Amino acid sequence: MEHVRVTFLRDDTIDAPILIEGLPGIGHVGKLVADHLIHELDAEKIGEISSLHFPPQVVVNEQGITHLVSNEIYRGEKDGRTALFLVGDFQSSSAEGHYVLAEHYLDIAENLGVERIYTLGGYGVGHLVESPRVLCAVNMEHLRPEVEAAGGSFENAGSGGMIVGASGLLLGLGKARGIEGVCLMGETSGYIVDPKSADSLLAVLSSLIGIEVDHTSLQRRAEDMEQILAKIQEAEEAKNREDLNYIG
Amino acid sequence: MEHVRVTFLRDDTIDAPILIEGLPGIGHVGKLVADHLIHELDAEKIGEISSLHFPPQVVVNEQGITHLVSNEIYRGEKDGRTALFLVGDFQSSSAEGHYVLAEHYLDIAENLGVERIYTLGGYGVGHLVESPRVLCAVNMEHLRPEVEAAGGSFENAGSGGMIVGASGLLLGLGKARGIEGVCLMGETSGYIVDPKSADSLLAVLSSLIGIEVDHTSLQRRAEDMEQILAKIQEAEEAKNREDLNYIG
Amino acid sequence: MEHVRVTFLRDDTIDAPILIEGLPGIGHVGKLVADHLIHELDAEKIGEISSLHFPPQVVVNEQGITHLVSNEIYRGEKDGRTALFLVGDFQSSSAEGHYVLAEHYLDIAENLGVERIYTLGGYGVGHLVESPRVLCAVNMEHLRPEVEAAGGSFENAGSGGMIVGASGLLLGLGKARGIEGVCLMGETSGYIVDPKSADSLLAVLSSLIGIEVDHTSLQRRAEDMEQILAKIQEAEEAKNREDLNYIG
Amino acid sequence: MEHVRVTFLRDDTIDAPILIEGLPGIGHVGKLVADHLIHELDAEKIGEISSLHFPPQVVVNEQGITHLVSNEIYRGEKDGRTALFLVGDFQSSSAEGHYVLAEHYLDIAENLGVERIYTLGGYGVGHLVESPRVLCAVNMEHLRPEVEAAGGSFENAGSGGMIVGASGLLLGLGKARGIEGVCLMGETSGYIVDPKSADSLLAVLSSLIGIEVDHTSLQRRAEDMEQILAKIQEAEEAKNREDLNYIG
Repeated sequence: MEHVRVTFLRDDTIDAPILIEGLPGIGHVGKLVADHLIHELDAEKIGEISSLHFPPQVVVNEQGITHLVSNEIYRGEKDGRTALFLVGDFQSSSAEGHYVLAEHYLDIAENLGVERIYTLGGYGVGHLVESPRVLCAVNMEHLRPEVEAAGGSFENAGSGGMIVGASGLLLGLGKARGIEGVCLMGETSGYIVDPKSADSLLAVLSSLIGIEVDHTSLQRRAEDMEQILAKIQEAEEAKNREDLNYIG
Repeated sequence: MEHVRVTFLRDDTIDAPILIEGLPGIGHVGKLVADHLIHELDAEKIGEISSLHFPPQVVVNEQGITHLVSNEIYRGEKDGRTALFLVGDFQSSSAEGHYVLAEHYLDIAENLGVERIYTLGGYGVGHLVESPRVLCAVNMEHLRPEVEAAGGSFENAGSGGMIVGASGLLLGLGKARGIEGVCLMGETSGYIVDPKSADSLLAVLSSLIGIEVDHTSLQRRAEDMEQILAKIQEAEEAKNREDLNYIG
Repeated sequence: MEHVRVTFLRDDTIDAPILIEGLPGIGHVGKLVADHLIHELDAEKIGEISSLHFPPQVVVNEQGITHLVSNEIYRGEKDGRTALFLVGDFQSSSAEGHYVLAEHYLDIAENLGVERIYTLGGYGVGHLVESPRVLCAVNMEHLRPEVEAAGGSFENAGSGGMIVGASGLLLGLGKARGIEGVCLMGETSGYIVDPKSADSLLAVLSSLIGIEVDHTSLQRRAEDMEQILAKIQEAEEAKNREDLNYIG
Repeated sequence: MEHVRVTFLRDDTIDAPILIEGLPGIGHVGKLVADHLIHELDAEKIGEISSLHFPPQVVVNEQGITHLVSNEIYRGEKDGRTALFLVGDFQSSSAEGHYVLAEHYLDIAENLGVERIYTLGGYGVGHLVESPRVLCAVNMEHLRPEVEAAGGSFENAGSGGMIVGASGLLLGLGKARGIEGVCLMGETSGYIVDPKSADSLLAVLSSLIGIEVDHTSLQRRAEDMEQILAKIQEAEEAKNREDLNYIG
C-alpha cells in the first residue's frame, strides 16, 4: 500500500500562494489559530491525507459514522487573498514518518502553487505568560525583516532552539525546494489550550498574510477545544490500559 | 520476502457477501462470538494469513507440531446464507503493520466477493455490566437504520470515540473500496472473557446476518478461552523474563 | 544496502543434508551444544551473515582487530556424515527482522542442499533440574516417531507453547519450502550456561544425526562461555549507561 | 523520498586520502578533537548529509534561520596533506539506520578517493583518569604496528569490547570495500567533555596523519562545547516533557 494517500475533493485547478500549517503541538496554539481562521473565512475542505504513519484507528463522529484518521487541507479567501490550511489531529507516530509526511505535504504545496509556508506553534515556557510574544524562525534570511515588521520576535534566536515535527521539517525540507518558510510560535505555559497566546500569534500572522479576521470567538473556541482534547486524552489513556481496542 | 502471505486451502471459487472479523480485543468479546459462530456453523477453514508484522514465533500444538503464527479465514453457511470469518490470535506488532494487514484483509474480502464487513469487539467500561448494550459504528450513513432495527445502539456516538486496530481500519480503509462496514461492540468490564456481553452481541449480529445459532455453549466456551488465554499470557510473561526463547 | 549479506569463504560446491542451528537463547544450551560439536568435528567456517537487523556495532578481537557483528556457517563431517552449523552471538534486533533473517537462513540451507534443520535451544523452567529432559517439537508429523526413538520427549506438547526467534521460524517458514524441522530444547533453569542440559540435548541430537562426539569438555566449555557472556553483558550494560559509544 | 541525502557545496573534484570521523559519543572526545582540527586547519565545509534516520527537526541558528539537522563534511589541509572530516551532532535514531548511514558515509569516502578512515571516540571508564591512554582498534592487521608507533595502545584488546555506531561500522563495513580503518578512543570518565583525553587523542592522531596543530585552545573549546551540549540536553528534556513541539 502507498505510505501516504492524498485525496482531493475537487477536480478544478486550485492555486494559492501560501499554506498555513496548524497541526497539534505545545498549548495547541497553532491548531487553535488555524482552526479559527478556517472558521472565520468559512474555508472549504479540499483534500484529505491519510497515512500508515498515523495511528492505526478510525474516529467515530456524532452520527456514529467512522472516518479513517487523517489530516486535512482547506482553502479560504478574503479580500482577494487566498490561503491553504493544513490542519488535523495527527503527527507521525514514528521519527522516519515525520520526514515522509513532510515531503508529501510539500508535494501538495508545490502542486497547488504555494510559494510560502507559515507553520504555527506554541513556545512552551512552563509558566503563565502575561503578554505572550510571538517568537519566530525563518528558512531564508531575507524573510526576517518582513516578519519583524509584522510584530514577530527573534529574541530567542541563538538559544540553541530546535523545531520538531511538521512545523520544523516544512521549513527545513521546503528550503531545498525554494519554498519560503516562516515559523510563528506563541509563548505559552504549555499546560492549557491558550487563547491569549493564539490572539498574539493571529495578530502577527494576519499582518503577514494581509487577511484580518475577528478575534472575539478565540476564547470560546479554546474552551471547546479543551473539552475535545480532554476526551481524546481520556480515550488514549483508556486505550493504553486495554492495550488494543475500541474506546468510546 | 513478502510482508503478508495469504494461503488458500481450496482451489474452487468461493463467493460470500459478508465477512465477520473477530480478532483479539477488549474482553475477547468479538473473538468469543466469532469462534462460537464458526463452531456452531461447523465452518470450514479456507485460508491462512501469516506476516512479518505478527510476532516472530511458532505455536506448538497438542501433537508437538509447530505452526507459524497466523490468522485464519473460515467459511460457514446456514439457511442458504454464507459468511466468511477472519479470526486468530494476532494483531500487528507495529502501528504501520496494522495498516498493511488491514489492506491485505480487504484484498481477500474483495477477491471473495464480500460486500459488507462486520467487525466485532468489546467496549470496555471498567466495571461489571448487568445488561450489556451493543454499541455500534458504521462506515456509511445508510447502514445505521438497519443496525438500530437489529438492536444495535448508537448512544455512544459523539463521545469522541476511536476504534483501534483491525476492527477500525477495516471500516475506515474499506469505505474507500466501497465495502460497507459495521462495528459491533459488546459492553464489558474488560477484565474477563465475557459471555454475557458476547450473548448480547451475538443476538444483534444474528439479526443482521439472518443466521441464528444456539447460544447455550457460550458460557462454557468463555471458560475454555479464559484458560487458554491464561496460558498464552503466562508464556508471554515468561518470554519477557527470558528475553528471547522457547516457552513451554 | 542489502538487508542481509551472506559471504561464502569457499568457491567449491558444498552439499550437506542437515543444518544445525545454535543461536543464543535460554540457558545458552543450544549455543553450547552447537559450539561443542563444531569444536569436536573440527568444523570449517564456510560463510558469514551480516545484517542491518543485527546490532550496529563491531566486535574487537584479541589482536585489536574489528569484525562486523555476524553469524556464521560451519561445515563439519564425521563417519561419512556431513552437517552444517548456523551459530553466532546475534538474533534480530526487531520483530520484523526475525522473519527476514530466517528466510535468508533458509535460502542458504536450500542452496546447500539441506533437507532437514535441527534447531537447538533451552527450555526454561525457572528451577534447577536434576535429570533434564529434551523437549521437542517438529514441523511435520512424520518426524515425531524418529525423534522419540532418539530419546526426545513430547510431554510438553499441548501446554500452549511457543518457540520464539530463529529456532521457531526456521521450522515454521521451512515447512512451506518442504524442509523438515526438529526443535530440541534441553530443560534448564535458564539462569546459567547449563552443561548438564547440553549433555542431554547432545545425546539426543547425536542419535538423530548419527554423529557421536566426546562429551567430556562440555563442562569446561560452559564455564568459558559463562565468562565471555558476563563480559558481553557488562559491555551491554555500560553501553546502555552511555547511550552510544565504545565499550571496552 | 531518499533515506539519505548528500549535498555537495562545490563542483570541482575533491580528492583526499583520509577521512576523520568525529560524531557524538562518550565524553564527546572524538567530536572535540575533530572540531578542533577543523578550526585549526580552517577547514572548508564541502558537503552536508541529511536523513530520515536523524531526528525529525530543524535547528534555529543565532540569526533565527532554520537548518535541517545534518552532519557535515569538511576538507582541510596543511603541509601538503589533505584530510576530510565527518562531523555533526547526530547519529541514527534507529538500529537499522546506523547501517544505512554508514554505507552512505562510505560511498562519500570512496567517491572522494579516501583510502583510510580514522574514527575518533571516547573510552568510558566511569572515573577520572590522570593520564588518559589512547585505546585503539583497526580493521586490518597490518595497521597495528603503525598505530602503536604513533602512541596508540592495544592493551584493551581481548576484553570482549565492541564499538557501537558510526565509529564501529565505518571500520566493519569499510573493510569489505578495502578501506583501511583505525579507531582511536581517548580514555575518559564519560561524564564531562574531556579536554585532557582529547589532548592525548590529538597527539596520536597528529602523528598518524602527519598534521600538527596547536593544542592550547582545546581547554576553552571543551568549555564552550559543554555549554552548548547543556542547552541541547535541556531542550531535549523539555521536548520529552511536551512530547512534540518547539523548544527554544
